[in-house]
Amino acid sequence: MRRLLTGLLFALAATPAIAQSKEPIALRDMGSFHVGGRIIEITGQPVKEVVFTPGGVPAKVDPNGKYQVEQMYVQYFLPQSKKGKLPILLWHGGGLSGVTYETKPDGGDGWMHYFIRKGWDTYVSDAMERGRSGWTSTFKGDAMVLPFGDPWERFRMGPPGSWNDDPSKRGSYPGMQFPADAYPQFMKQGVPRWVTTDNEIVKAYIELVDKICPCVVLVHSQSGTFGYKVLEARPDKVKALVAVEPTLGGDRNKIESVKGTPILVVIGDNAKEHPRWKTIRQNSVNYQTAFKAAGGSLDLVDLPDAGLKGNSHMVMMDKNSDQVADLIQKWLASKGLTD
Amino acid sequence: MRRLLTGLLFALAATPAIAQSKEPIALRDMGSFHVGGRIIEITGQPVKEVVFTPGGVPAKVDPNGKYQVEQMYVQYFLPQSKKGKLPILLWHGGGLSGVTYETKPDGGDGWMHYFIRKGWDTYVSDAMERGRSGWTSTFKGDAMVLPFGDPWERFRMGPPGSWNDDPSKRGSYPGMQFPADAYPQFMKQGVPRWVTTDNEIVKAYIELVDKICPCVVLVHSQSGTFGYKVLEARPDKVKALVAVEPTLGGDRNKIESVKGTPILVVIGDNAKEHPRWKTIRQNSVNYQTAFKAAGGSLDLVDLPDAGLKGNSHMVMMDKNSDQVADLIQKWLASKGLTD
Repeated sequence: MRRLLTGLLFALAATPAIAQSKEPIALRDMGSFHVGGRIIEITGQPVKEVVFTPGGVPAKVDPNGKYQVEQMYVQYFLPQSKKGKLPILLWHGGGLSGVTYETKPDGGDGWMHYFIRKGWDTYVSDAMERGRSGWTSTFKGDAMVLPFGDPWERFRMGPPGSWNDDPSKRGSYPGMQFPADAYPQFMKQGVPRWVTTDNEIVKAYIELVDKICPCVVLVHSQSGTFGYKVLEARPDKVKALVAVEPTLGGDRNKIESVKGTPILVVIGDNAKEHPRWKTIRQNSVNYQTAFKAAGGSLDLVDLPDAGLKGNSHMVMMDKNSDQVADLIQKWLASKGLTD
Repeated sequence: MRRLLTGLLFALAATPAIAQSKEPIALRDMGSFHVGGRIIEITGQPVKEVVFTPGGVPAKVDPNGKYQVEQMYVQYFLPQSKKGKLPILLWHGGGLSGVTYETKPDGGDGWMHYFIRKGWDTYVSDAMERGRSGWTSTFKGDAMVLPFGDPWERFRMGPPGSWNDDPSKRGSYPGMQFPADAYPQFMKQGVPRWVTTDNEIVKAYIELVDKICPCVVLVHSQSGTFGYKVLEARPDKVKALVAVEPTLGGDRNKIESVKGTPILVVIGDNAKEHPRWKTIRQNSVNYQTAFKAAGGSLDLVDLPDAGLKGNSHMVMMDKNSDQVADLIQKWLASKGLTD
């Protein structure tokens, strides 16, 4: 009887999720393109004969010659009912790709869905060297990826020392919003990265901004740095910057030329006391102080202070990601960027 | 006056293209996920201190441990007005990613748009190791990319010997459908590939088919081989196979178990007499002979014989790509796969 009751309760609990149909998405257009990049030349290498497909016809491949490198992939969705006054560009963090903003690891709708549904022309890109942007062996140094357990603590899903290969023994922050069961799916989103390619990454982002903007740029983690650098290069084109858990602030020597652009910095939970993240957070606090002293508008929101508790570094994948997006949407509206 | 007239004619000619707005796309859902992959373990490597962002806080990275590898990225679009009886899966060729089916290099709508608009639940993936699937340095051998000029002849945009770095001196096949001006944009879509990873690629495709199908699988070039291998592994789930310019046919020893699945092979122009492509084409002709002898349905269409002339290997990027898609759509309808 107890078993039957449990089964019945489960069935009842499951019904709303199954019955709940999503709001449809109507697009006036969608598509993709690559921007930027350049042609390099390689010389003096021997011609190879390569069988591309086992059992296939061998083909001669001359590795010498010119190569297309350093371009960046961008996918866009233009809602039929446009309500954002400018396009919004979503830039991901290190070791990841634009997938960051797509369906969440737990299967829920991501920020890409959110901003499209709110009527923003939404552009999601893969940073130069990652994902569909391609990569080249001519980058300096080795590509790196994080071991399976590493981001658990690095991205503040659990406190230092909380990782355990056995999920049942894995610690997490109280009230953690990152869906623990979806961690393996999150780790499938990782792509190799270099640590020597910032200039080429920024160059490609600038080419994107020159093509699409004026716009809003939303950045995360590593791309916080890129967001500030691109704002400093194109202050007339980046009309608002939303920096989610950025690793750095901007260049304090360049504030005078960028202070006309309002900035929102969003930081999750458990950052203030964290041995590493408190330093990272302080970069934004220091930049905020200087930015405001110069007369600019920079709002720094620690999510727990806004009533949103338990957020990890991967805010857009957390269970309450829509609530955080609501906070960003309201801020954008307050800056006159929505219809 | 002549100048004025020319201007007027231009304006008249240009009007329809400008006035013509695209048919909107209404989706009941869209999203992405990764399938497959496995965890590997690396041991005995020293801990590194890495500055991920110049000026950022150094972080200790222990390269030892477990790594997620060999997963595959899939993006899907589910039209509100569903007319395809089954989902359609679009698999790209070697050295490329799912971008193959998105916006064409000349900016026109690609086959992804086409099949979504025709009401198919459309799944576009990046093969294991490419694009948003990520890659790992543990693959055997070197990754390779094709030099800038190489695909021009390899993919039959121009005949052997026609490539020239100077576009004005570049030869092409008469009536070539590939948009020559868009060649540099096409080359930006390239991503590195290995030639040692077929088994892992097929494994991930099988996991996708197990998750999504029964379905239609549409393959191109290298993925022709993968399409046949997956059909042979899951003949009950691949209900139709469309092989566009496949590099190989299927395994003749396995025809008995797959002959219930109808197959369409589509081959572009200038393949029959081409020193390399005539051999590749013959693979499909030979397989067709055996497939039909066993009682299966395999239609091999040389596009010029169907009145579509000048198609390159990159059929879905050619100027007449929609006409080729129409041919595929009609074939799918003839097999009872549309409502």
